[in-house]
Amino acid sequence: MNTIKQVTVVGTGVIGIGWIARFLSQGYDVVATDPAPNAQSRMEAAIDKAWLTLGKAGIAEGASRDKLKFEPNLKRAVADADLIQENAPEREEIKRSLLAEIDRYAKPEAIIASSTSGLLPSKLQADCERPERVIVAHPFNPVYLIPLVELVGGKDTIFEVIESAAQFYHSINMKPLVISNEIEGHVADRLMEAIWREALHLVNDGVATTEEVDAAIVYGPGLRWALMGPFLTLHLAGGEQGMKHMLEQFGPALKLPWTKLVAPELTEELKNKVISGCEQQTKEHTISELELRRDDFLIELQKLLEKYWPAANLNGKL
Amino acid sequence: MNTIKQVTVVGTGVIGIGWIARFLSQGYDVVATDPAPNAQSRMEAAIDKAWLTLGKAGIAEGASRDKLKFEPNLKRAVADADLIQENAPEREEIKRSLLAEIDRYAKPEAIIASSTSGLLPSKLQADCERPERVIVAHPFNPVYLIPLVELVGGKDTIFEVIESAAQFYHSINMKPLVISNEIEGHVADRLMEAIWREALHLVNDGVATTEEVDAAIVYGPGLRWALMGPFLTLHLAGGEQGMKHMLEQFGPALKLPWTKLVAPELTEELKNKVISGCEQQTKEHTISELELRRDDFLIELQKLLEKYWPAANLNGKL
Repeated sequence: MNTIKQVTVVGTGVIGIGWIARFLSQGYDVVATDPAPNAQSRMEAAIDKAWLTLGKAGIAEGASRDKLKFEPNLKRAVADADLIQENAPEREEIKRSLLAEIDRYAKPEAIIASSTSGLLPSKLQADCERPERVIVAHPFNPVYLIPLVELVGGKDTIFEVIESAAQFYHSINMKPLVISNEIEGHVADRLMEAIWREALHLVNDGVATTEEVDAAIVYGPGLRWALMGPFLTLHLAGGEQGMKHMLEQFGPALKLPWTKLVAPELTEELKNKVISGCEQQTKEHTISELELRRDDFLIELQKLLEKYWPAANLNGKL
Repeated sequence: MNTIKQVTVVGTGVIGIGWIARFLSQGYDVVATDPAPNAQSRMEAAIDKAWLTLGKAGIAEGASRDKLKFEPNLKRAVADADLIQENAPEREEIKRSLLAEIDRYAKPEAIIASSTSGLLPSKLQADCERPERVIVAHPFNPVYLIPLVELVGGKDTIFEVIESAAQFYHSINMKPLVISNEIEGHVADRLMEAIWREALHLVNDGVATTEEVDAAIVYGPGLRWALMGPFLTLHLAGGEQGMKHMLEQFGPALKLPWTKLVAPELTEELKNKVISGCEQQTKEHTISELELRRDDFLIELQKLLEKYWPAANLNGKL
């Protein structure tokens, strides 16, 4: 049972604002706090804007823009919260002491969730008196529209807290992905950070402009990633033999300098994990069925994109 | 002027089939060749399938499934072609000698394009008598639906050939991205290869399954990549200050172990390139306008995905 009624958002930058908008749109009472001058007026303006968008996306029954309260004092802001979502700058020492402070002021049964993009929950919870209720709940921008939230516990987090948090985020229309092994960057940000660093190298080495890098994603591989991740994408590029064929065909390319990232050794064990993983994912579906689904999606997606792409049209160069 | 009338596709694997389907759907006469036993019958079956999909996507006036001819003999297959698209296995020595052979048999004015995912055109053209008409034209699977094609010349390729090729691919509804500096993996595959290697590490290290990696893309960052590449995405995550703010906020994370890929030094020069690149890309548009466009797209995309996602629903786990 989801017993979370009141939510407090600590830190009202882009991610904090996104959380506030999502919580409000799902009918929750939200208290927001931020020590910055003008934080309240900037928050109100940003929420007004997001609220217009949420009107188009659809809001829950009973949801109201008026269920938001700004409280500059941290202690008072977290006192009644059932879940506190922390969005401080991405520096371990800042988050660590802030979480310890939140932990002191919050109700004993409240869940404390950090939005950190990549820091380890075991470190973030280390100074808390009740570390067992501290987790990472990492969202994606814009938080009020993107469903993924990565949930990661630290070494002191108890399973029940992760379970309650997963239920709660699921109830606000999110897709909670519980990650059992904590690692810097969790999962999605490791993938994004790899692409980001490679993109920076390309610009740094004078191979492409930021615009060309973006075009190389948007008109190509980016079209498939809303439907299929890197594994399923390649599974479908391998013909009827799927990933097995791809590993034979592109396995040797892992040794080539096609990125600045060094690949793992393609051992039999890794091959088996990848191939059986893909087969497990696609279970009842043949490659042919999945290709058809992909193609139908791509046709509809490109019709939709006709309305949006021109502004990203390399200023007319493509 | 586009003077290309007849196209020959060498190699009828997944990518070759994709090219055949795209060329046919745009009204071209296509000759296909492949030395494998049963290549013709496998090709015919695959084209029949793609043709059904292309019926939904829309085909050009005058296009016909019957304009396809299989010719097992390479010399005869390329003799009358204005453009030859090569799709041999991804091994330099194979492609190099095959391209030299094609070069010997083709009309002097024909363009020879290799679909290589990552090999360098300067090396691929090295054994040709007329290397000036050899280029890389790298497509994405499924070729008959994804518009991006990366065009890269080698050191002997002349500009007029790249220009004619760009016109031709543009005329068949593709988005040709001309890359001026050849590099292993071109641009898009460098980004994909970085994500792919990081994903393999995650599976290899036991952090996530293939299914979890895919979910971490599909429900999160993957939703944005059909509209915006990595630079524009971050530009919009930085609030009104855009990329400038993001580099301040996440610059220090470049030193953290958030991926196995080592980042470049974030010099003032690189910062300036990235910030001015993003400003150039978005010129007449304010961040607010672009956020609105992104949000409208995300709302429509997720409505569209409701039809497709359940099958990728972590077998009910999410």
